[in-house]
Amino acid sequence: MINDELKEKVKSFKVEIPSWGFSDSGTRFKVFHIPGAARNIFERIEDAEQVQKYTKAVSAVAIHIPWDKVDDWKALKKFAEDKELKIGAVNPNLFQDEDYKFGSLTNLDDKKRSKAIDHVLECIEIMKSVNSKILSLWLPDGTDYPGQGDFAKRQELLIDSLKKIYSALEKNMTLLIEYKFFEPAFYHTDTADWGIAYALSKDLGDKAKVIIDLGHHAQGTNIEYIVSILSSRGKLGGFHFNSRKYADDDLTVGSVNLYELFLIFVELNKFFDLSSKKLALVIDQSAAMKPKVQAMIQSVEALQIAYLKSLLVDVKSLKEAQLKNDIVMAEEIIKDAFLTDVRDILKESREEMGLDPDALNAFRKSGYESTVAKKRG
Amino acid sequence: MINDELKEKVKSFKVEIPSWGFSDSGTRFKVFHIPGAARNIFERIEDAEQVQKYTKAVSAVAIHIPWDKVDDWKALKKFAEDKELKIGAVNPNLFQDEDYKFGSLTNLDDKKRSKAIDHVLECIEIMKSVNSKILSLWLPDGTDYPGQGDFAKRQELLIDSLKKIYSALEKNMTLLIEYKFFEPAFYHTDTADWGIAYALSKDLGDKAKVIIDLGHHAQGTNIEYIVSILSSRGKLGGFHFNSRKYADDDLTVGSVNLYELFLIFVELNKFFDLSSKKLALVIDQSAAMKPKVQAMIQSVEALQIAYLKSLLVDVKSLKEAQLKNDIVMAEEIIKDAFLTDVRDILKESREEMGLDPDALNAFRKSGYESTVAKKRG
Amino acid sequence: MINDELKEKVKSFKVEIPSWGFSDSGTRFKVFHIPGAARNIFERIEDAEQVQKYTKAVSAVAIHIPWDKVDDWKALKKFAEDKELKIGAVNPNLFQDEDYKFGSLTNLDDKKRSKAIDHVLECIEIMKSVNSKILSLWLPDGTDYPGQGDFAKRQELLIDSLKKIYSALEKNMTLLIEYKFFEPAFYHTDTADWGIAYALSKDLGDKAKVIIDLGHHAQGTNIEYIVSILSSRGKLGGFHFNSRKYADDDLTVGSVNLYELFLIFVELNKFFDLSSKKLALVIDQSAAMKPKVQAMIQSVEALQIAYLKSLLVDVKSLKEAQLKNDIVMAEEIIKDAFLTDVRDILKESREEMGLDPDALNAFRKSGYESTVAKKRG
Amino acid sequence: MINDELKEKVKSFKVEIPSWGFSDSGTRFKVFHIPGAARNIFERIEDAEQVQKYTKAVSAVAIHIPWDKVDDWKALKKFAEDKELKIGAVNPNLFQDEDYKFGSLTNLDDKKRSKAIDHVLECIEIMKSVNSKILSLWLPDGTDYPGQGDFAKRQELLIDSLKKIYSALEKNMTLLIEYKFFEPAFYHTDTADWGIAYALSKDLGDKAKVIIDLGHHAQGTNIEYIVSILSSRGKLGGFHFNSRKYADDDLTVGSVNLYELFLIFVELNKFFDLSSKKLALVIDQSAAMKPKVQAMIQSVEALQIAYLKSLLVDVKSLKEAQLKNDIVMAEEIIKDAFLTDVRDILKESREEMGLDPDALNAFRKSGYESTVAKKRG
Repeated sequence: MINDELKEKVKSFKVEIPSWGFSDSGTRFKVFHIPGAARNIFERIEDAEQVQKYTKAVSAVAIHIPWDKVDDWKALKKFAEDKELKIGAVNPNLFQDEDYKFGSLTNLDDKKRSKAIDHVLECIEIMKSVNSKILSLWLPDGTDYPGQGDFAKRQELLIDSLKKIYSALEKNMTLLIEYKFFEPAFYHTDTADWGIAYALSKDLGDKAKVIIDLGHHAQGTNIEYIVSILSSRGKLGGFHFNSRKYADDDLTVGSVNLYELFLIFVELNKFFDLSSKKLALVIDQSAAMKPKVQAMIQSVEALQIAYLKSLLVDVKSLKEAQLKNDIVMAEEIIKDAFLTDVRDILKESREEMGLDPDALNAFRKSGYESTVAKKRG
Repeated sequence: MINDELKEKVKSFKVEIPSWGFSDSGTRFKVFHIPGAARNIFERIEDAEQVQKYTKAVSAVAIHIPWDKVDDWKALKKFAEDKELKIGAVNPNLFQDEDYKFGSLTNLDDKKRSKAIDHVLECIEIMKSVNSKILSLWLPDGTDYPGQGDFAKRQELLIDSLKKIYSALEKNMTLLIEYKFFEPAFYHTDTADWGIAYALSKDLGDKAKVIIDLGHHAQGTNIEYIVSILSSRGKLGGFHFNSRKYADDDLTVGSVNLYELFLIFVELNKFFDLSSKKLALVIDQSAAMKPKVQAMIQSVEALQIAYLKSLLVDVKSLKEAQLKNDIVMAEEIIKDAFLTDVRDILKESREEMGLDPDALNAFRKSGYESTVAKKRG
Repeated sequence: MINDELKEKVKSFKVEIPSWGFSDSGTRFKVFHIPGAARNIFERIEDAEQVQKYTKAVSAVAIHIPWDKVDDWKALKKFAEDKELKIGAVNPNLFQDEDYKFGSLTNLDDKKRSKAIDHVLECIEIMKSVNSKILSLWLPDGTDYPGQGDFAKRQELLIDSLKKIYSALEKNMTLLIEYKFFEPAFYHTDTADWGIAYALSKDLGDKAKVIIDLGHHAQGTNIEYIVSILSSRGKLGGFHFNSRKYADDDLTVGSVNLYELFLIFVELNKFFDLSSKKLALVIDQSAAMKPKVQAMIQSVEALQIAYLKSLLVDVKSLKEAQLKNDIVMAEEIIKDAFLTDVRDILKESREEMGLDPDALNAFRKSGYESTVAKKRG
Repeated sequence: MINDELKEKVKSFKVEIPSWGFSDSGTRFKVFHIPGAARNIFERIEDAEQVQKYTKAVSAVAIHIPWDKVDDWKALKKFAEDKELKIGAVNPNLFQDEDYKFGSLTNLDDKKRSKAIDHVLECIEIMKSVNSKILSLWLPDGTDYPGQGDFAKRQELLIDSLKKIYSALEKNMTLLIEYKFFEPAFYHTDTADWGIAYALSKDLGDKAKVIIDLGHHAQGTNIEYIVSILSSRGKLGGFHFNSRKYADDDLTVGSVNLYELFLIFVELNKFFDLSSKKLALVIDQSAAMKPKVQAMIQSVEALQIAYLKSLLVDVKSLKEAQLKNDIVMAEEIIKDAFLTDVRDILKESREEMGLDPDALNAFRKSGYESTVAKKRG
């Protein structure tokens, strides 16, 4: 691909950024405060605007209910649009209510289960108000000890709950089912892996798909292969991008294994044109120790770089090498793309869009952080 | 359950033992020789007869083709039957032919792929000759390096190959698809997890099911939950029992985490009466360092003990505790069953079957090992 | 060992229980409230008294500073002693102060590092007041991203800080250095494994030893072997008992792999008489979902059971089997001990101490929980 | 660092390549034959000469005894020197003799243990003949089952064996102790981690150091931190470079996580000038599926690239960022070095040494492979 094409591709490549990525977060041991961290959805959107301002790579801001709940959704939509932003995926919260202690969509108690379902249905209503098409469902349900739950009964309840949710979707809406290996439940997780999320999405129908979160796998898992399996079966719906070294660390994108991220993009390119919005590409990080907007710009840039590198793969030569079982040459073709420094292409594309080529430093020098640190107390 | 019932249950509980468990095996570094290790299928069946003689818990001997290939299958069947044994699952070998270097059922080369398919079809013919109903398919295919293979193309070829195989099954035959996390391929494995095996079994039809090998999961995986998911979806077809601490160590059953094994049986009991042969319960070990027959008797006994313990779970009280979200009591009920010493029940059941209550020591004292050590050189 | 000896052993076997195990705890996602959970050190000691009342197996209550800080330490000591309890290990907190965001004992900022050191020195003063001999130091320091910290500089600062702390120890005091694989830092942890803790303890001197927390290892680690290595080198100082399936789950003891726990005790018995207090045997759990006192009684009982089973190992026969490389018999001897149901021995020992044989149910029926649930609001 | 300096650095950067990397190898399931794979040490050195010819980056050829045993060591030395090669680290083999079934340096049997010690002593004699200064000791010893071995007794024997070996070292010789997480033993490994290797090296003295093999760690381990700890304590002696995704896969260097490899070099640079031979930098791979010489050239190049990238880190700015706890800038400095394409520098340095800039393709086109495929049958 020649540079002009690459620049057009990366200019059209957009990711959603999460509202919750701009607020304080941490571990079970401590939430350290970042000066100026956003305290509500309006401040989060102001922060998101900064990411957009310096990268023009933001497709939308994913929101989390009830953290981002407002009285007037139309006003929020307008507030975002005035900042060149849309509201993206709507994420229900099924883990912070005392009623969900023993499960949300899998709770044995009809009332509590209904409450959880109703909360998701409420999210679908919000989607309509803000014109969002993606319901992004992470189910934290699980158990801590053998005997605590009846696995099969819980699955049965889960399927039933999901069917109620699914039937409320409008026709151009998509339900993304997220899976996670462990945490917050430690013995078993009801949607523990892609296989379960896939089976559930098949039970439901075409509007249900699977979302991959990079931090939600066992060590040693080949994630790019899961991309292939789900995509070829028509069931890959989106991505939650972040990094992890051991568990679900929610570090900024590309901070642990840039090569793996690149290989994921190589695989995605086989099924999707990522420069046209087909997949829900969402950053999901909680960079507890980094200034929030900087952390988000880093992640956006890591994705742009991985994407550009992935476009450099000489697909034709790769196929030839594969046909000859020339493992060395096949790998060299992949590595050649990865080792190429694409940052100048990215910088030029930014300049052509009227942006500073060095987004991160431009933001750092802008004074925004000290302003909001004062303003937000 | 009262002791008499337990004894009847464990008397009816049978497992298949693998022919290959009686021959020398090892790691990539060294195959240490065990004196008297069996050298062919006849010696393997002689060894299996010993396990049967001292436990009466053997349902059949699983065979591996071509390791166990003979000219006259009817004669082999007779040879086994004379020893109170049947021929069980037939296991094709798709990893030891030079032609499978770059894949067997996924090989891009039509001839090599056909050769692999033909080998499996040959196994189906053998099944007919020996009256086996289980085709147990482990696919070692995968790649070592990024770029080496085209994931989606390989899946396409795999599905196509499996369909050819499936269509050759007779109506009471079952194809068990085995998955494995890694090894012998190190970058990607075509059937890497239960999700892929499940999806493939759905593509094929009711005669295709999934077999779980205890050594084929990522660290931290909750295997009993996979039992539940597959069983409730009608797709659990069998088990390969063994133990592992880190990778696919193929140690004797119950040597690493007896509690996990017990919990797997607790889950199995919810879906199957294991005392009637519904599932293909097969030991799959390569106890490289232990005398072979002893190792097999140990594994059979570990399964009997886990099974007996699992039958002790007070299912009614457990359900009540679960309904009350009484996590402590639910776990105590599970642990109470596990902590109960069931070995006297096992011993009594053996005595009632005319066996020595201490199977392992009876065998050790029998002189069989020194006899075959001499005879087999 | 005959039953009378076993009963004497288990009667003399005592563990420390942690004050923090009686208060609400949870994951980064949610701290669910347990009705009646203790809110301060006095309530925690009241709860600990219950564990003591029903088990007589509590050697002391470990405390955590500043969570358990009081104005009058002598009064606290008296409060505990009136309840047949002592104050055990003192645990500094180096993770909850904003100043420790970029490290405590490794902080580049002299003032912040001094603050951390001073906090630990304050804990040593508290030890003197409450007559505690164990300073139990868990260092949460680490980094989240490559480049964030200078590994070697941090080690240098750590050693320097530890030397200052060490020099303040009185002669019969012990500093226990705890290691942890990851969390709350995700890229690197300054004291990541036993090797680092061991090297540091060698740098310091005889009063410094290593404490093993069962949840702080990579998957697949053989913990009983670490017990052996540290013990034979005179550097094992204590244990934090809990359970985990994947990460540092802090589940109640024995809930994931009872066999591993037993094997740890088998190894400990080779170096220590656990019925005489030589090692700091401490429970460290945060059973977020279970009623707190019940959870602690479960863990105490799991330790008693593992200990009793471990005493059953026929050491002499085991040595003989090992000398003959009789792997099967050696393992059978180990398993024979594990499979024996020791609960009647435990129950009898309780009865001989004037306790209810079923400690957990006796407590459950006592009405304590409903009383404190009301009282503590 | 300016380009001229970088070129000088990379020209002086040399690695050892292993003789065994040129012969057929595989998994426990199958050793696939690579046409032309070397069959003896002379062919291995011929192959090594090819790597040298196209890269000029080979410091020596590591040998493995008895695989590479010859009658006339002086002649072998001369054979290598005629090809611009030296004999490097000598690697004893303690895993392929039937006598080592239950241990080599830890064997309870005095005769077998002496045999193992004698074998290592023989290797020291070989070192003298071939002027090698590095004894690279990997101890495969361990056990498969609980009870099989007495951990502490084995450590005692190991220390005793190592002392005998150590005392035979000449004064400029170094003993490198290699550790490994698991395999070929599955329950416990006598030298399981860096902590044990470190403690043993301290027991022995200054001539004993630790060698890190990249494939020998638990998942999630931060290897660059182990580099720092060992280096700052004066005990890092060398590296075995390879790649792994899950276990000890022995894939070619840099094929799984190039960023991790780079970070290891960043850390090494703090302690060593890698362009002067201070550390034993050795490739240890068994690229079962790749043509052997190509695989070795790939690995050499991966190391050169990682080394060059690591030299680009702006150490001064990094230190400033660290002092300000500017995590984002610190990481950006690291990533900036990593993302820079250094291949032109490498190519120029090759041209300045009279080499083809594209080493791999030059070799591929040379016809060597087809020649040896014919010659070696």
